[in-house]
Amino acid sequence: MSKSYKTILITGAAGRLGTELRRGLSPLADTLRLADIDEIKDLQPNEEAMIFNLADEAAVMKAVEGVDAIVHFGGVPLERPWEEILDANIRGSYHIYEAARKHGVRRVVYASSVHAIGYHPLEAHIDTDAPVRPDSLYGVSKCFVEALSRFYWDKFGLESVCLRIFSSFPEPADRRMLWSWLSFEDCIRLVTASLTAPRVGHTITFGLSDNAVKLVDNGKAGHLGYVPRDNTERFRARVEAEKPPVDPKAPSTLYLGGWFVDISHPNDEASK
Amino acid sequence: MSKSYKTILITGAAGRLGTELRRGLSPLADTLRLADIDEIKDLQPNEEAMIFNLADEAAVMKAVEGVDAIVHFGGVPLERPWEEILDANIRGSYHIYEAARKHGVRRVVYASSVHAIGYHPLEAHIDTDAPVRPDSLYGVSKCFVEALSRFYWDKFGLESVCLRIFSSFPEPADRRMLWSWLSFEDCIRLVTASLTAPRVGHTITFGLSDNAVKLVDNGKAGHLGYVPRDNTERFRARVEAEKPPVDPKAPSTLYLGGWFVDISHPNDEASK
Amino acid sequence: MSKSYKTILITGAAGRLGTELRRGLSPLADTLRLADIDEIKDLQPNEEAMIFNLADEAAVMKAVEGVDAIVHFGGVPLERPWEEILDANIRGSYHIYEAARKHGVRRVVYASSVHAIGYHPLEAHIDTDAPVRPDSLYGVSKCFVEALSRFYWDKFGLESVCLRIFSSFPEPADRRMLWSWLSFEDCIRLVTASLTAPRVGHTITFGLSDNAVKLVDNGKAGHLGYVPRDNTERFRARVEAEKPPVDPKAPSTLYLGGWFVDISHPNDEASK
Amino acid sequence: MSKSYKTILITGAAGRLGTELRRGLSPLADTLRLADIDEIKDLQPNEEAMIFNLADEAAVMKAVEGVDAIVHFGGVPLERPWEEILDANIRGSYHIYEAARKHGVRRVVYASSVHAIGYHPLEAHIDTDAPVRPDSLYGVSKCFVEALSRFYWDKFGLESVCLRIFSSFPEPADRRMLWSWLSFEDCIRLVTASLTAPRVGHTITFGLSDNAVKLVDNGKAGHLGYVPRDNTERFRARVEAEKPPVDPKAPSTLYLGGWFVDISHPNDEASK
Amino acid sequence: MSKSYKTILITGAAGRLGTELRRGLSPLADTLRLADIDEIKDLQPNEEAMIFNLADEAAVMKAVEGVDAIVHFGGVPLERPWEEILDANIRGSYHIYEAARKHGVRRVVYASSVHAIGYHPLEAHIDTDAPVRPDSLYGVSKCFVEALSRFYWDKFGLESVCLRIFSSFPEPADRRMLWSWLSFEDCIRLVTASLTAPRVGHTITFGLSDNAVKLVDNGKAGHLGYVPRDNTERFRARVEAEKPPVDPKAPSTLYLGGWFVDISHPNDEASK
Amino acid sequence: MSKSYKTILITGAAGRLGTELRRGLSPLADTLRLADIDEIKDLQPNEEAMIFNLADEAAVMKAVEGVDAIVHFGGVPLERPWEEILDANIRGSYHIYEAARKHGVRRVVYASSVHAIGYHPLEAHIDTDAPVRPDSLYGVSKCFVEALSRFYWDKFGLESVCLRIFSSFPEPADRRMLWSWLSFEDCIRLVTASLTAPRVGHTITFGLSDNAVKLVDNGKAGHLGYVPRDNTERFRARVEAEKPPVDPKAPSTLYLGGWFVDISHPNDEASK
Repeated sequence: MSKSYKTILITGAAGRLGTELRRGLSPLADTLRLADIDEIKDLQPNEEAMIFNLADEAAVMKAVEGVDAIVHFGGVPLERPWEEILDANIRGSYHIYEAARKHGVRRVVYASSVHAIGYHPLEAHIDTDAPVRPDSLYGVSKCFVEALSRFYWDKFGLESVCLRIFSSFPEPADRRMLWSWLSFEDCIRLVTASLTAPRVGHTITFGLSDNAVKLVDNGKAGHLGYVPRDNTERFRARVEAEKPPVDPKAPSTLYLGGWFVDISHPNDEASK
Repeated sequence: MSKSYKTILITGAAGRLGTELRRGLSPLADTLRLADIDEIKDLQPNEEAMIFNLADEAAVMKAVEGVDAIVHFGGVPLERPWEEILDANIRGSYHIYEAARKHGVRRVVYASSVHAIGYHPLEAHIDTDAPVRPDSLYGVSKCFVEALSRFYWDKFGLESVCLRIFSSFPEPADRRMLWSWLSFEDCIRLVTASLTAPRVGHTITFGLSDNAVKLVDNGKAGHLGYVPRDNTERFRARVEAEKPPVDPKAPSTLYLGGWFVDISHPNDEASK
Repeated sequence: MSKSYKTILITGAAGRLGTELRRGLSPLADTLRLADIDEIKDLQPNEEAMIFNLADEAAVMKAVEGVDAIVHFGGVPLERPWEEILDANIRGSYHIYEAARKHGVRRVVYASSVHAIGYHPLEAHIDTDAPVRPDSLYGVSKCFVEALSRFYWDKFGLESVCLRIFSSFPEPADRRMLWSWLSFEDCIRLVTASLTAPRVGHTITFGLSDNAVKLVDNGKAGHLGYVPRDNTERFRARVEAEKPPVDPKAPSTLYLGGWFVDISHPNDEASK
Repeated sequence: MSKSYKTILITGAAGRLGTELRRGLSPLADTLRLADIDEIKDLQPNEEAMIFNLADEAAVMKAVEGVDAIVHFGGVPLERPWEEILDANIRGSYHIYEAARKHGVRRVVYASSVHAIGYHPLEAHIDTDAPVRPDSLYGVSKCFVEALSRFYWDKFGLESVCLRIFSSFPEPADRRMLWSWLSFEDCIRLVTASLTAPRVGHTITFGLSDNAVKLVDNGKAGHLGYVPRDNTERFRARVEAEKPPVDPKAPSTLYLGGWFVDISHPNDEASK
Repeated sequence: MSKSYKTILITGAAGRLGTELRRGLSPLADTLRLADIDEIKDLQPNEEAMIFNLADEAAVMKAVEGVDAIVHFGGVPLERPWEEILDANIRGSYHIYEAARKHGVRRVVYASSVHAIGYHPLEAHIDTDAPVRPDSLYGVSKCFVEALSRFYWDKFGLESVCLRIFSSFPEPADRRMLWSWLSFEDCIRLVTASLTAPRVGHTITFGLSDNAVKLVDNGKAGHLGYVPRDNTERFRARVEAEKPPVDPKAPSTLYLGGWFVDISHPNDEASK
Repeated sequence: MSKSYKTILITGAAGRLGTELRRGLSPLADTLRLADIDEIKDLQPNEEAMIFNLADEAAVMKAVEGVDAIVHFGGVPLERPWEEILDANIRGSYHIYEAARKHGVRRVVYASSVHAIGYHPLEAHIDTDAPVRPDSLYGVSKCFVEALSRFYWDKFGLESVCLRIFSSFPEPADRRMLWSWLSFEDCIRLVTASLTAPRVGHTITFGLSDNAVKLVDNGKAGHLGYVPRDNTERFRARVEAEKPPVDPKAPSTLYLGGWFVDISHPNDEASK
């Protein structure tokens, strides 16, 4: 049987999740083209590497040539000064989408983030149609790419899945992650489903494992066919023993974005 | 323990699904009365057969005598010229409902169809209260019976379950059926639940197996207690190998009704 | 300035509302073609008359020739035996829609009825997307035409407006009509808006004047641009003096359909 | 590992559910303080007992001293004359909440009831935000405490979970309980989740096992992390054999509250 | 023409709004029976006065004898210690409803309050089905009566309208009242509509004039036929000149209840 | 009486709407500070002018000094190549918001656009919470600023109103503008309401006059107190005479964005 794609480009391939995706997406394509601003190690026979900055439009255009799907996990992964966000996440993602349009890429899977909706209170139990409420400039950049990708679908027919990943780490590190955790294996399942679902149009989905505590409604992304198989129950006793109970009225407890709602503006950080 | 019903009438009993239901509903009634316009083969000891046209009001009235539940799967099962739809599905179903009222039947389970809502886009993720959007004269006739059965419940207390069956075949035959498939065993489970649920009033439900890709919300039919046990995962590899990916902007991909949205009016067909 | 339409066909032109529409729609077309099963009186210079039965497919086809809009108010206007409903409202309306498609008619305005949703309780405050709940065979036939016209829009691009008229009489005749009344002038405004709105696609709208008591939500038909100018306040004192208060728990008070929910099945009527 | 709480007060500890909770909540606290108006038997080493009337404000204040969580299952558990409801459920619960506020209790888990929403029809498939519709003075008192506890959360930051328990008995006793049953083990799981969930604010949740027939939507309480593990399937055959089918138009079948909707006002009872 | 009612009982008739209602409701009944705990002055020929405490069940029962509608505006009108709230608002209202049931009163119009939903944020734009969120013990008592009256409608067929009055004063006194004001004339219009609407069942409605700033959605009470005619525009310049702008993040600005959310528990007040 | 603001900064003050706002907002502030990239003519005594490029961060910072409200109508007002959109609308608006935060500005009124939601079909009748669906890079930049301003409200308490202006021209120029028109006077009313409403938090509102044809639901912005007084009825006859009827299936008719959905990507334009 032939693979779903000939060449998949993975941006951010040297990062925490990018490294996992190299392993996980290998069955889906003949070639994985790996892109990052940093060196990519342990290249496998089915992999090829390209090192460049997403803000470099010509480099992006070249990296997308011959690609039929993009897994766009590159860019800065947390709050940073405006110029860095602007270059890596806003300009960089525009370069990716415009290159994808020019080269006839069929589908993009984008690593959006819970921080695009970080200021929704937990008790709102939002679904994926809720208005954005970013909790950081980083989150604002995620909202920008979600809007941009919607435009590229509606006008140019380029399909996208935006994954609002909550907390994807080896293990839940605190009480919040008991509900916000996305295991690496479920992350791979989610990207795989996004790449192989029959029709995604423009889809926004929450990226979470099947944890017992459920705070958001992912029903409108049911067409992806993502079925998580992990949950945090096996970590619960340890986490609850190590971490004290949380204050139910603290902003970092009240809002989906967690401690991101507590950090100040990067300009204020910079002035320290 | 006594059975749920004394006599269940199954219309369309010689058809693809009717044949499966003979086997599956056997535990629910002392007698299965089988009706069809065609010959019914291999009659079992607990079965009795009646051959007639649903457009024949007197024959329908006679067939319903002594019955306490009807599983109405008869009529034309796909797009046909108006006069055929009118006689078999519209007039025929009126005869069934009026006979049921006259003879005090307690409950009717009706084979409606996805084609009553075939023009809803997949991305709408509709529930069972969404307005009808038929994709064919066949689908319009299904809408008619759903409205008729609602009337017979509201005014005369005759309970009905309308099953909007998607694709009930031995195996999924194409990529669309990877999400639209209803296995024969789940079809039997669904009709059984519809016949044995404590109270159905007038219920519309989607008829689907537990496939990973989920496009509609069946929550408002939760009172049926239908629990599907099949899904299409074991067929996925074969179907994806045999059938090419679909065009995400093609109408037959965009709408729930699939290729029914592509067929022309039967009057145009007839003139060819 | 040229008129909106060259020729508008009005069916049911000899009826109560048809007569008002002849006067009211005169500014919109060069010619009003008037159709009815009964004689049409006082023909004006801009009018032409055709007498036929809607069940006569050939006659309907001929009447629609050369027409660019249809105001379809014909058929039986209240509960009748099934065969009459079937011929006049179901078969007759199919003939109208199929003729409209064949002859390239741009738009149909259809007199649906509150009786398509008569079994919704007042307190539900439904909008036009609520599922149908007909209160009579007459109401079921209205549901059929609403579904049929949706199909002709989705598949063939024939625009329709379905007017769920509540109570259109010279004056409110009882306490229910204090909220359900549609004045003749507002009825003309509503049909005019339906014919002249820039884009109607397939629209379902409630037909009501601007009465103080408001029981349904017509927001989803806001694209028609219908602005009612009448209300029942000037009749209130008289009606309340003449008619006793209603029983708040009586079905005819509880449901939108009013006394239609109290009438029995026409087959039972017939047997008296 | 230290326990979640130092001392949990259980009111109604001598009752049917209270007795089960003594066993089930034992792992969560160093000490269970048991309160009831009746004698509490078989006191365990980790338990202490206090016998008093909830209407006695001073006694309640004393019982709450030194407590960090309250499981408030006390009060009259079914329809009773107004004065009894007033003293035990309204005044008694006010005493509990005011004592909790005064003594800095972190969280209250309250045994509300399906009878707070007993007059919603089954077909409404309500969620936990639906307006209250009590079916008894008992139900009205449950609405009062739900409102009171909301106030104590919004103004004073005292967290509460209100459990709308449907039917918690050793086994389902009739056909209604096939869908309304909450097993004792699931009841313990639900109270445990309510006590240990990271943040509950003010939560209303339905108390049901994972029965096949699902009539309500508990999604907005997903943050509790309650995962039921029991269902009624193993009792179905017996119950259906012993109990006749129900009338689909009877009020006790139509409404969530079951036979509570059939009982008269306690003042009328009293006068018999 | 005869009046709508023979005798209307007005409780709280000596209060601010009660005094206005004596004048405004005079056209609706032959006799206004006025009740208050305080003296009622300037008795008119069509009026009769009864002085008693609502906590006195026998006195209430006697006052309701011969009455066909009750306008229940009595009780404490703002935050007070629990015992006062309990006696006047909870016990007192139970007495009113039980007397109404016993004496066959047709309809009750109850002065509920914005303080039953005072903790909803302005930006939620709630409708009348939103869950209660009282901002005071006073507000909790309003929730109690709303639930109680729902019960008396569902089980006993006693109709009620609960008016969630925002700010009914001679003139808007601060910036909040520019949106929360209910003029005395509109208050009379609202009570009149509540008494004369054809069918109210159990209705909850917001009590507001037609102010430009609109924060809540009253659509589900459209069956009352209430048409406000006043608004605050003529007071705007004066209020804005006299009162400074508000802090957009202050709780008293954020929540519907206004400064009620700032007051502490009456037990704490009492201890000062 | 003192004015609402000491100094209001208007960006884009030399543009079509900016010129109208100079006249209209004059009563609200002691000083209007006018900013544009082009020369500003006819300076009035209460006005001061500053000419700079929004992409110049230092210039923006200086222009905002001493300002207590900003009416941000600057930037490119239609589809342009990415670099222009990026500099003027994305970077420029970030400069405005960051300067507003630094200088303690109380409120920003931002000229967003229908093109942020231009790909919603008319029949969706969206409200202001619908997900964004931009129809152009220009529209994507509007989505960016809506998200950015939400962030500045949630984290820093800077209030914003985002006006999704449809078509603000001297007169409706085509049939679409019969429903999409915002008169200059209503535009001034809308900005005035946005500046003077007691509390706006972060508000998104549609900018439309009171046209008969209504396609969107502005209820969630009711707290602005905006009351439009113009509509297009007086232009209807002329427009309908001059402009032919539209094709109901054309994209530019189907979607809110009108002809913007037909324009290609600026990169393709540029290559011509």
